[in-house]
Amino acid sequence: MDLGDVDGEVDVSLDYTGLQRSEQVMTESDTVRDRIAFLRGLRSVRDFRPDPVPREIVDDLLEVARWSGSANNSQPWELVVILDRETLRSLAAVEGYAKHLAGAPLGIVLVMAGEPERVGHETYDEGRLSERIMLAAAVHGVGSCIGWFAGDGRQAAKTLLGIPASRLVRTVLSLGYPDDEARRARPKREQPRKPLAEIVHQERYRDTE
Amino acid sequence: MDLGDVDGEVDVSLDYTGLQRSEQVMTESDTVRDRIAFLRGLRSVRDFRPDPVPREIVDDLLEVARWSGSANNSQPWELVVILDRETLRSLAAVEGYAKHLAGAPLGIVLVMAGEPERVGHETYDEGRLSERIMLAAAVHGVGSCIGWFAGDGRQAAKTLLGIPASRLVRTVLSLGYPDDEARRARPKREQPRKPLAEIVHQERYRDTE
Repeated sequence: MDLGDVDGEVDVSLDYTGLQRSEQVMTESDTVRDRIAFLRGLRSVRDFRPDPVPREIVDDLLEVARWSGSANNSQPWELVVILDRETLRSLAAVEGYAKHLAGAPLGIVLVMAGEPERVGHETYDEGRLSERIMLAAAVHGVGSCIGWFAGDGRQAAKTLLGIPASRLVRTVLSLGYPDDEARRARPKREQPRKPLAEIVHQERYRDTE
Repeated sequence: MDLGDVDGEVDVSLDYTGLQRSEQVMTESDTVRDRIAFLRGLRSVRDFRPDPVPREIVDDLLEVARWSGSANNSQPWELVVILDRETLRSLAAVEGYAKHLAGAPLGIVLVMAGEPERVGHETYDEGRLSERIMLAAAVHGVGSCIGWFAGDGRQAAKTLLGIPASRLVRTVLSLGYPDDEARRARPKREQPRKPLAEIVHQERYRDTE
């Protein structure tokens, strides 16, 4: 599981190619490492600077969102893009886990179709969509955090935004440029991950409990 | 929503910087465009060449998977990595939508914790995890497709792999190098997406029905 080995492997396989090709493939290999590090490196950001996220960047997020995959390509989603600080603060105050929205210059509420017999698919697709938007934001150096409306907060959010009651509204993404100073001032939240040995099984599940 | 505008914007803002810095930032801008195109471009692949996916690449996928975000950092997942063709064919045959697994050289079954009161969070996190793994695969030119066990297929998959009945098993990812020839031979499946105007609302939901 040593990632260093991957680079090693790629380098060795290039030893016999000419310089020009080698240089080009090295660049491809760099792109691969760079992208893997990018995917591996996404972390939640809860503290935002007040600077607005430029319209062109928002358009990029929406375009990536639009092309997200979904079960049977059903695209069971709509997005409400919110810049208004008052609306963001009101949404942050409803029941749930979206307080970070109060300090964000941008929020995106995911409005799922809400077909009762497809709730599993919609929830799964909602996770896929969220991940894409957060990754697209990170490309632009924009931080993000998932907020989650719970209990009465779901209907409250729908009422605030004029969303029909039939829709499923749970996720709101807070977005903005990271406020590194505020983050450093917070008590350190470690977000360690389980080692691969604890979560990966080869060919067959081995009970590790 | 014209993506071309983004590059234009970035270029203009660099007009006043020196050549060296400009060159460097141009490269950053290229990286941004490249990454956005990468995120936007992920598509399902159902036809695979028989070539195995190298171990180093599988390690990369698992490492990206391991660092996926989850609600409260609960990491409610384990992964079963399957190369055995017989097992893959057996899984492809259970009830559900995973027939493409029969032709894949690699399958990854997502085993979710299965806590009854957290099924919503687990399903959402399962979607996030799937998206990360598929993107990490795409970085390496490895195609992927989501398979979904349904009905009795879920227990059948658990029995085949020795997974405790308490776990939630729905998703299997088929992975492998794309067989472009087979894909061209298939009837063309268009996977268009709704226009942004249909799915995006500004500040407040406007009923477009």
